[in-house]
Amino acid sequence: MTSTDRPPARAWPPTPDFDVWPVEHLPAAAETDGRIVTVTWDDGRVSRYHAIWLRDNAADPATHSPATREQVGHPWDLPADLAVTSASLAGDGSIEVAFAPEGRTLAYHPGWLRALDYSNGRHDDLGDIAPTYWDCRRLAAPPTFDGPACVERDGALLEALEALMEYGIVRLRDMPADETAVQQFAERIGTIRNSNFGFLFDVKTAPADSRKAADSNAYFAGALAPHTDLATREYEPGLQLLHCLKNTTRGGRAVYADGFAIAAHIRRTDADLWRAVTQIEWTFTNRSPATDYRWRAPLVVLGRDGEPVEIRATTFLRGPLNVDYDDVEAAYAGLRAFQTLAAGDRFAMTFDYAPGDLIAFDNRRVLHGRTAFDEAAGERALKGCYMEREEVLSRIRVLRRARRANRAA
Amino acid sequence: MTSTDRPPARAWPPTPDFDVWPVEHLPAAAETDGRIVTVTWDDGRVSRYHAIWLRDNAADPATHSPATREQVGHPWDLPADLAVTSASLAGDGSIEVAFAPEGRTLAYHPGWLRALDYSNGRHDDLGDIAPTYWDCRRLAAPPTFDGPACVERDGALLEALEALMEYGIVRLRDMPADETAVQQFAERIGTIRNSNFGFLFDVKTAPADSRKAADSNAYFAGALAPHTDLATREYEPGLQLLHCLKNTTRGGRAVYADGFAIAAHIRRTDADLWRAVTQIEWTFTNRSPATDYRWRAPLVVLGRDGEPVEIRATTFLRGPLNVDYDDVEAAYAGLRAFQTLAAGDRFAMTFDYAPGDLIAFDNRRVLHGRTAFDEAAGERALKGCYMEREEVLSRIRVLRRARRANRAA
Repeated sequence: MTSTDRPPARAWPPTPDFDVWPVEHLPAAAETDGRIVTVTWDDGRVSRYHAIWLRDNAADPATHSPATREQVGHPWDLPADLAVTSASLAGDGSIEVAFAPEGRTLAYHPGWLRALDYSNGRHDDLGDIAPTYWDCRRLAAPPTFDGPACVERDGALLEALEALMEYGIVRLRDMPADETAVQQFAERIGTIRNSNFGFLFDVKTAPADSRKAADSNAYFAGALAPHTDLATREYEPGLQLLHCLKNTTRGGRAVYADGFAIAAHIRRTDADLWRAVTQIEWTFTNRSPATDYRWRAPLVVLGRDGEPVEIRATTFLRGPLNVDYDDVEAAYAGLRAFQTLAAGDRFAMTFDYAPGDLIAFDNRRVLHGRTAFDEAAGERALKGCYMEREEVLSRIRVLRRARRANRAA
Repeated sequence: MTSTDRPPARAWPPTPDFDVWPVEHLPAAAETDGRIVTVTWDDGRVSRYHAIWLRDNAADPATHSPATREQVGHPWDLPADLAVTSASLAGDGSIEVAFAPEGRTLAYHPGWLRALDYSNGRHDDLGDIAPTYWDCRRLAAPPTFDGPACVERDGALLEALEALMEYGIVRLRDMPADETAVQQFAERIGTIRNSNFGFLFDVKTAPADSRKAADSNAYFAGALAPHTDLATREYEPGLQLLHCLKNTTRGGRAVYADGFAIAAHIRRTDADLWRAVTQIEWTFTNRSPATDYRWRAPLVVLGRDGEPVEIRATTFLRGPLNVDYDDVEAAYAGLRAFQTLAAGDRFAMTFDYAPGDLIAFDNRRVLHGRTAFDEAAGERALKGCYMEREEVLSRIRVLRRARRANRAA
């Protein structure tokens, strides 16, 4: 079948979402045994769907609100003896399924039904982007994009955000060096995460008379060892934006390192250190008269599949280690190894911030730091905010959806 | 030693934090083998501390900033041959430790050192509050507190927040029924979580002409089955506040249920259902033209200790189930069992919202819902916001610290 043979998409039944489902294949046959609907497609593929799955995902207004596309019917309210009495093909290529004891016939969009076939293995409904780990041999500088293009054009933004999810860091060049640009760009992605440091924060030397009230080492001119921010929180921010407004000091070079790559290196080279960084928990404690956030986690948090999902390396927020007596020296050995790698030539990417540079990075993967700077030599000002990985992923999905809609139109 | 014998706290060495460390016991002896410092206390307890632990936690200005109390020295910069050359007691009860090769002597606060002893088992540095699971036989209504007292008095607030962490729900009565009260109370605890629904949100029937653009079922007058909010997010909000401003409709009764208690019931009674609700993952998908958040999780998420840490039950945001073919019917059976219990007489606590009531609940534990209401019969308006569990825990720690300081003064 060529594309000109296709019936127009709008003639097909609705789907329970706002997405676009190109029809690549049409069903050739549909049958049922009452519990399962079996669809044979024009390329020979056979897909099987359970009655309860089809009924739950029906796009009729009694099941999904046409306004919100959210469920208004619930599967636990369906009759316990739910069954399919017939499955057949409509002339336009949709699949019609009749349910008992309700006596209702519901129609399914063939592009949607084919894409969501779960009987031939799981499909990638999250749109996952696999990480590429890097050291400085692989990546000498952050993947760099034109800032204004990303603000103005969806295609450019999508490309930058996909690189951000793959490498954990991107640099946007030539953003306006003003106070509002970081928020504008952040809101082009999604929702900014509020914190006790405010909605937006300024990283610049604190005025001398306010030094005693500073609530973070970041507000001094000293070097900052590579770290993640807010390891004291149950939910370490998944994304950080840092936008350079001014930089006329000497020093203050940016330092970034891929914590997942460091973890992989340790795993390859030293089983004792690997155990230490993945199994022994530090207690991270926020020091402030006003707040007292705490969280307990190893330096490298592993997901259910055993791969790193999160680095917890806010080293200057480590509280007193509170672990088994025999693990204390191993914990420090792991910390020393991890931080030495993060600051070393192989893993620490360094560069100078130029005014207008906006660095976006995965704060749960990529450590950031800086060399010390001479505050008498000039001014240095960064403006930043926190977000979450899921804001980036949501924007990527919406941009990909729009691209599919454009192609289908 | 009676309290009047104690030296004044300010004479003791500083600690690397903003906390208060009452001295209940003084050291009777201190000695070292170079690697370990052994302290014998006046009650006979023997505590052992590693050289690296003591050195890393020193409160001198080169190790911890006196302004921020954050680390400015790093343990990986210490000499690899770090050793203790002597450990001794000062006249005021502090412990003095000399380090080689640095040649520095650092002093430790006895209350701090005793409290953080890790050589006799881990201490509770998070200040954990164990949950008490409830059904309606145990808890007929939310633990209820006087709202204005919680706003004005730290002691009343602390009591309410401790109950919130224990039961997952509290009700504050007689809050001002105005638009600002929920934000004021939230900020008495900590930081509000922003979302695509806004910083604050209004739960009331959408005006008829905006129905088609509504972005959540909550904005209609229908019943809402017990659910958690935002299961589509990696980080489901840990806390929700709902403040009743007006309620002159018929119906719209509040429904709350303890998801952890329901999970425990399923665990006790049916191994197949327990596997289904804890092992089979639903894909939760946000339906919106503007955002597309997704997350995959079972209904009941277990922590490392095998106990429930999170309920994912935004049933109207379930996307098409995408699991092993043979798990489909089991997944629906688990969902049916869980939601039927959540709405049933045993677990579903129901009551009417009165203007001025503010309900605070753990959105990752306690499901909320409502019965349908008659929008023609009157007005119903709730104002709400999201926060995190950790904001509550931080406030509890700060309030407890202030109480310790008051008692010590």
